[in-house]
Amino acid sequence: SLIPFGIACVAVGFGVKTLIDKKLGGPVNPAIRKEESKVVDSLDIEDLGNKAVFCRCWRSSKFPYCDGSHNAHNTVHADNVGPLIIKKKE
Amino acid sequence: SLIPFGIACVAVGFGVKTLIDKKLGGPVNPAIRKEESKVVDSLDIEDLGNKAVFCRCWRSSKFPYCDGSHNAHNTVHADNVGPLIIKKKE
Ligand code: FES
Ligand code: FES
Repeated sequence: SLIPFGIACVAVGFGVKTLIDKKLGGPVNPAIRKEESKVVDSLDIEDLGNKAVFCRCWRSSKFPYCDGSHNAHNTVHADNVGPLIIKKKE
Repeated sequence: SLIPFGIACVAVGFGVKTLIDKKLGGPVNPAIRKEESKVVDSLDIEDLGNKAVFCRCWRSSKFPYCDGSHNAHNTVHADNVGPLIIKKKE
């Protein structure tokens, strides 16, 4: 009948888009500062302290700093992103 | 007949996944260092020079540095990501 056929086709469309995003990429930032046309942060080296950890997964509640949210993101989406660390030499 | 109905249902599935990714987010990194379980970069402040521009869109050919690829990414995916700039005070 039509209903299982329709559901199967919806699933195919969903799966195709999932595979395309995996290979070619989709939008990166779902929610941070969406009112800005381009989210750029500019910081002075002198203000960084001994160590600063910066978010590159766009899921941190402390953006532009990393709060560890990349780990949950990587698990949910089978991704492998992580932060940029800027530190003083020891 | 079945064919247009099937195509319409595939399109619905594709569209649903597109909307979900837009709202909730999907994978962020399609291609950079996928052999690593988590891509973390750690740099020394002393090596940055006067200004360093770091990629947060995961599309740069000079990753972890920005090469401007965020602009094409933003256009294609209606996204708003941009780099992190670390610079010496003037
Ligand atoms: S929270 Fe985004 S990289 Fe850590
Ligand atoms: S190329 Fe990725 S932020 Fe510029």
